[in-house]
Amino acid sequence: MDINKYINELGEQAYAASREVASVSTEIKNTALNAIAKEIIKNKDDLIKINDQDLQTAKKSGLETALLDRLELTTARIDAMADGLKQVADLEDLIGKTTEYVEQASGIKVGRMRVPLGVIGIIYESRPNVTADAAGLCLKSGNATILRGGSEAIHSNQAIANCIRAGLKNTGLPENAVQLIETTEREAVGELLRMSDYVDVIVPRGGKGLIERVSAEARMPVIKHLDGICHVYIDDEADIEKAISIAYNAKTQRYGTCNTMECLLIARSQAKTVLEKLGPMYQEAEVEIRGCEESKKILGNIKIATDEDYATEYLAPIMSLKIVSNIDEAMQHIDKFSSKHTDTIVTENKLNADRFLREVDSSSVMLNASTRFADGYEYGLGAEIGISTDKFHARGPVGLEGLTSQKYIVLGDGNIRS
Amino acid sequence: MDINKYINELGEQAYAASREVASVSTEIKNTALNAIAKEIIKNKDDLIKINDQDLQTAKKSGLETALLDRLELTTARIDAMADGLKQVADLEDLIGKTTEYVEQASGIKVGRMRVPLGVIGIIYESRPNVTADAAGLCLKSGNATILRGGSEAIHSNQAIANCIRAGLKNTGLPENAVQLIETTEREAVGELLRMSDYVDVIVPRGGKGLIERVSAEARMPVIKHLDGICHVYIDDEADIEKAISIAYNAKTQRYGTCNTMECLLIARSQAKTVLEKLGPMYQEAEVEIRGCEESKKILGNIKIATDEDYATEYLAPIMSLKIVSNIDEAMQHIDKFSSKHTDTIVTENKLNADRFLREVDSSSVMLNASTRFADGYEYGLGAEIGISTDKFHARGPVGLEGLTSQKYIVLGDGNIRS
Repeated sequence: MDINKYINELGEQAYAASREVASVSTEIKNTALNAIAKEIIKNKDDLIKINDQDLQTAKKSGLETALLDRLELTTARIDAMADGLKQVADLEDLIGKTTEYVEQASGIKVGRMRVPLGVIGIIYESRPNVTADAAGLCLKSGNATILRGGSEAIHSNQAIANCIRAGLKNTGLPENAVQLIETTEREAVGELLRMSDYVDVIVPRGGKGLIERVSAEARMPVIKHLDGICHVYIDDEADIEKAISIAYNAKTQRYGTCNTMECLLIARSQAKTVLEKLGPMYQEAEVEIRGCEESKKILGNIKIATDEDYATEYLAPIMSLKIVSNIDEAMQHIDKFSSKHTDTIVTENKLNADRFLREVDSSSVMLNASTRFADGYEYGLGAEIGISTDKFHARGPVGLEGLTSQKYIVLGDGNIRS
Repeated sequence: MDINKYINELGEQAYAASREVASVSTEIKNTALNAIAKEIIKNKDDLIKINDQDLQTAKKSGLETALLDRLELTTARIDAMADGLKQVADLEDLIGKTTEYVEQASGIKVGRMRVPLGVIGIIYESRPNVTADAAGLCLKSGNATILRGGSEAIHSNQAIANCIRAGLKNTGLPENAVQLIETTEREAVGELLRMSDYVDVIVPRGGKGLIERVSAEARMPVIKHLDGICHVYIDDEADIEKAISIAYNAKTQRYGTCNTMECLLIARSQAKTVLEKLGPMYQEAEVEIRGCEESKKILGNIKIATDEDYATEYLAPIMSLKIVSNIDEAMQHIDKFSSKHTDTIVTENKLNADRFLREVDSSSVMLNASTRFADGYEYGLGAEIGISTDKFHARGPVGLEGLTSQKYIVLGDGNIRS
């Protein structure tokens, strides 16, 4: 198989399809999304059977349990996939919306219209439901998609892609609006990442290794986030109840997510009060604390945190802890160690709140709320393709808007420039 | 000189300064902009003297007249540079502005705050006034800047950079908010383009060669435009007066600009009427027309346009011309040959206007207006750092907003996720 040629064909077809779906009506896009959901439900038994083949192969090749779990398609997960598509159909369509037109001195009226990005490449690992989720968001935002899933999920992804194509076809949309790379050759990814003539943006979804490879090789923009080293800072004037509740929730509500707190910063004046209550709570939850010398004096037998600890996304029941003099030292620590994902201040002091919200350079900055809220659904985006820690283009949870751009529209009445 | 070390120092200093200017008040930024303008006026005679050295050296080394002209700093140009800075001071400050906060089901309130990008690298050729223009826009948008001008303008740029630093210092802002690369070693550019740890975005301003090099080498996002192959399409239902006036203005008002029309498309039904009037007008202006066979029958002795002509940005009194069956053929031609910069339809038909505005995938799409309006000033942005033909992040004329990003702000009252 000539991979270069194959991927280029996908690119050409995606470009052609992207021009069609860019200008299709909201109604047709929604009909397609619902038709795809219907196909997925109709083929539920087959999907489970085909997924079982992938699971058996993966087990034989010794894939670890956590990854096997992510690979599995259960009835509930298939239903959720179909529901997700219906929810995306219910979201507002941004494409074609224009800002207010402003008349300029020359008489021209200038506005901006929201438009799709074009062709979006999605590279993801194990979870086959991403196939439908990502395709749905891209379709609703008027983009064509080229999907490249993990090789262990290839048959599951093909089966889902077939449902998608059937749904598109039944609605009269080009089937090439969503294409799956059907070879598991690793070289296909490299080829996709070089194809900047046809692919407008790449969204990698998976572990750090995948995201680093994609960032290094892609010849087009990448929507990505690497680490989620999130902080909660308990200020001098924090409400103690809120502080304890937020610091506990931000760490323990889920350990493996990118918006989980990895480091707690406490103003010296509050440290004793807060830690005497929080310490035992974390202990009961079996969260290991690695703290500064000063915190050890309060908590007793804990590990001393190194700079490496402060720079680590544990994704586990481990956290680092530092007692700081004030908001300035807290923000300096965050500036040095935060991955610019999500950081929270707990305070009742309006000036400190305003300073923190304005000066902390992260994709989400919060006041008196748990970092765990950093999520497209929680922010009311309806769905998210990922969370971007970059500042260019999309930042924070990326929903439909992040998958679009704007063009300038100029309305004249024969205006010429003098 | 260790260039690697030198550029890295500039990067570190720029990063530190960027954190300061990001949260400085509008008043201080405006005071600094006016202080810089004052320094430039104060040092006018010195600037002209130093610029004259650059001019003499450039003449001796045989720089061509057009470039010598761009290199020259006259009294008028220095005044314009200072006025430009004062105008940027008068523009609205977007930094810190928040969208409306929307309360979510969980009780958190979510909004977005406009923030600077961080450190912006500007790489430009000959024109020393870019030093002040670019630095002014970046400062107003809360960014730090690293400037790299053409080697032939090094002394002029240094002198302007000294005025900028003096203005910053007098206002109490970090002088490193605007830094000039003071070596003319070519390797310095390569080092800057690799320094993605400190530089958030690169803006190349200059010829195609420069922009292609920067795009190929930069390890960070680039705000750029390559070609300006702009079209005017005269529709079946065009108003003939407007059509002729726009097509003439779009080509002849200035030849060397990126928003000049390079190709005129005319619906067959209008071709004879339009060309019998426009042909002689272009002839009088000494514009060479390269057209399709059909247009030759109307215009007589013209060159036949090749596909290469249709794909060329002439930047000269040369244009290509094609008679098309209808709006569909016009849009197909534009899809194939446009550089996605600016394209105009001249029509009184609302349906065709709407289709063109929605379906043409260019950074500016116009109705009944000359392509020459594609410009930050004409669009009311107050100033522009360039015109982006990319879809990612900024698109079209890029003013202050294009030099910023947004972060999510979440306001809670002790909210935790369940």
